[in-house]
Amino acid sequence: MKVVGILGGGQLGLFLSQSLARLGAATAVFDPDLEAPTHRHTAAAFPYPFTDQEKLRQFEDLSDVITYEFEHLPVSVLSTMAEHESLFRPSLKVLAVAQDRLMEKCFLRDKHFPVVDFLAIEKKEDLAAFEQFGLPCLVKTVRGGYDGKGQKRLKSEAERQAFLPELLARLERGETMVAEKLIDLSLEMSCIVARQKGRCVTMPVFENVHKDSILDTTVFPSSLSRELDAGVRKLACDIAAALDVEGLLTVEFFLSGQDIFVNELAPRPHNSGHLSMQAFNLSQFDLLSRILLDIPIADCEPISEQAFAMANILGDCYYRDGDRSTLNMKALEQAPGFVELLLYGKQEPRKARKMGHLVCRGATPAEALHRALALRKALSSPS
Amino acid sequence: MKVVGILGGGQLGLFLSQSLARLGAATAVFDPDLEAPTHRHTAAAFPYPFTDQEKLRQFEDLSDVITYEFEHLPVSVLSTMAEHESLFRPSLKVLAVAQDRLMEKCFLRDKHFPVVDFLAIEKKEDLAAFEQFGLPCLVKTVRGGYDGKGQKRLKSEAERQAFLPELLARLERGETMVAEKLIDLSLEMSCIVARQKGRCVTMPVFENVHKDSILDTTVFPSSLSRELDAGVRKLACDIAAALDVEGLLTVEFFLSGQDIFVNELAPRPHNSGHLSMQAFNLSQFDLLSRILLDIPIADCEPISEQAFAMANILGDCYYRDGDRSTLNMKALEQAPGFVELLLYGKQEPRKARKMGHLVCRGATPAEALHRALALRKALSSPS
Repeated sequence: MKVVGILGGGQLGLFLSQSLARLGAATAVFDPDLEAPTHRHTAAAFPYPFTDQEKLRQFEDLSDVITYEFEHLPVSVLSTMAEHESLFRPSLKVLAVAQDRLMEKCFLRDKHFPVVDFLAIEKKEDLAAFEQFGLPCLVKTVRGGYDGKGQKRLKSEAERQAFLPELLARLERGETMVAEKLIDLSLEMSCIVARQKGRCVTMPVFENVHKDSILDTTVFPSSLSRELDAGVRKLACDIAAALDVEGLLTVEFFLSGQDIFVNELAPRPHNSGHLSMQAFNLSQFDLLSRILLDIPIADCEPISEQAFAMANILGDCYYRDGDRSTLNMKALEQAPGFVELLLYGKQEPRKARKMGHLVCRGATPAEALHRALALRKALSSPS
Repeated sequence: MKVVGILGGGQLGLFLSQSLARLGAATAVFDPDLEAPTHRHTAAAFPYPFTDQEKLRQFEDLSDVITYEFEHLPVSVLSTMAEHESLFRPSLKVLAVAQDRLMEKCFLRDKHFPVVDFLAIEKKEDLAAFEQFGLPCLVKTVRGGYDGKGQKRLKSEAERQAFLPELLARLERGETMVAEKLIDLSLEMSCIVARQKGRCVTMPVFENVHKDSILDTTVFPSSLSRELDAGVRKLACDIAAALDVEGLLTVEFFLSGQDIFVNELAPRPHNSGHLSMQAFNLSQFDLLSRILLDIPIADCEPISEQAFAMANILGDCYYRDGDRSTLNMKALEQAPGFVELLLYGKQEPRKARKMGHLVCRGATPAEALHRALALRKALSSPS
């Protein structure tokens, strides 16, 4: 029996471990958080700090192959594991690109993939160029940061000037930053690619809406024309090939007018791919599982003619009932188009924390989305 | 967080634990088999004999609610657990009826549910009546025995006479037997009922084919008329109500001409319900999970207009490749109508052992079944 090591035990790790279990595999899960959901569903939980080299080695020894559910792995892990690089799917080289925003953008630009204008801010001397950089813009930290953490949006010269002292302080702390042009968004979307020994399988494009930089909803099919959908999928495939990915690559795109820009790469399953669990015969987790277990992948097909919509459930959706935070499960008794409600088993429904998600279907994307939002609202409202 | 105790860690326990995990719950799994698949996917595995009272008590203490994935639990377990009867879904009373074929048949007959003629053979004096019992008939052990184990089919008077010494020996060992009339089968089918606080949700009827008394294929939708489908579902509901089930009840039926007979009851998820994982928005495991976690159940709906077929993969499907037994995974590259392949992670592909199953879909039940059988054949054939 194969044992797959998963770095990170959040919901993405949990759903991956479920797909793996359905193919007869065992898992080992490394996550410093004792309460990480996946720890409860594996016989080999490693709830230790990422600095614990001995535990990392045990985890490695147990694993026939290793993957990760988030790309911001500390350097300590990567250096400990570098000698076992061959176990990683996708490779540590892919991870190195994806976990550094600047390296990622440079890679994309060098390979002539469409990215918005950006500027590296690595040292004090770069500030002059930054003061010339077009507005509005976003300034992001190069490492770490997700769901909009570590981002600053600058709309005016006054805002830029006000931000300079903080920027300088961050540079002095050794942080690297990147400024990127803020463009008019027509659409945010993602495309998930599975790549196995040079064979690429892409999922159709998903249409995403973010709120406060956190994924809020995903809809399938997207409103892209057939040609644009094919173009985006081809682009995602080409990027996966340029990185020589063995595993999954999620590519987030912007559509601005008729122009497509690559926003971010994530070499792992993605929250925007949740509805692939219900809408397709092979989910993103199934595809990755096959690659990890050396089982041939295949094209993934919609399971129905209907449209699907996913709505994230943040801690904000919970309300107080006596001394506990809760959702109103009575909402499930009458939920038109209900497909699935998933709760991740996280203890504390903190604001902006991803606690679960739900999926509804409908005759059109609009109907599916309407139903998903209505159900989320009903879950968030006391009877 | 709720902890659900599951007695039995086979594939049914595994899929149940996955549904529970998707609702944020934790599991504890008791199964004497160290290699039971579900042990690998829980943080609370109890791989101890069912006679280990201390471990059973620990398991009980950990569990907020207890269910079981097979009904032939040893009396030792039940007597140890009787004081915590209130934790059980379904109740131990339901289990007592379902784990004793004679009690089950008497219950059904007393409540006027249709069962084929049967005769209890409990003591030597019953042999005279048995010699008068109509032929052909089946003689079954009353306790234990599944997949046709412990059954004897008698077609002629000569066979009956030849069987008498064995029957006598079994009675003397203290076994109880039941003889039942063998009827001409038009169809075998099953209906899964979820019952929560008096509310019944039934799945549509599944059409099953057994080979050598082991479930071979399941197809949905069945070939029953709409009226018969409704009739069978009503009957299944009424039986669940008569038993006051809180949880799942699978009712296996025979159709003989236009007559319906109840064959067996299983107060748990059932292998014939596997395709509910792919074909419906709520699977049998999802419904049971909701009941165990006190979340309202809802009607389950087909996820598509298409037909679905499940084919079991027994150890017999594996072939030797060098020193290992294997399936030909290349078959997955081109598999029309593929929906899912599940492998249970059992180590030894023994003859007649359930190792996995696959699900295909098609425009008609016949097409779905044809595809499922073709894929199974391809998996069983070296390239």
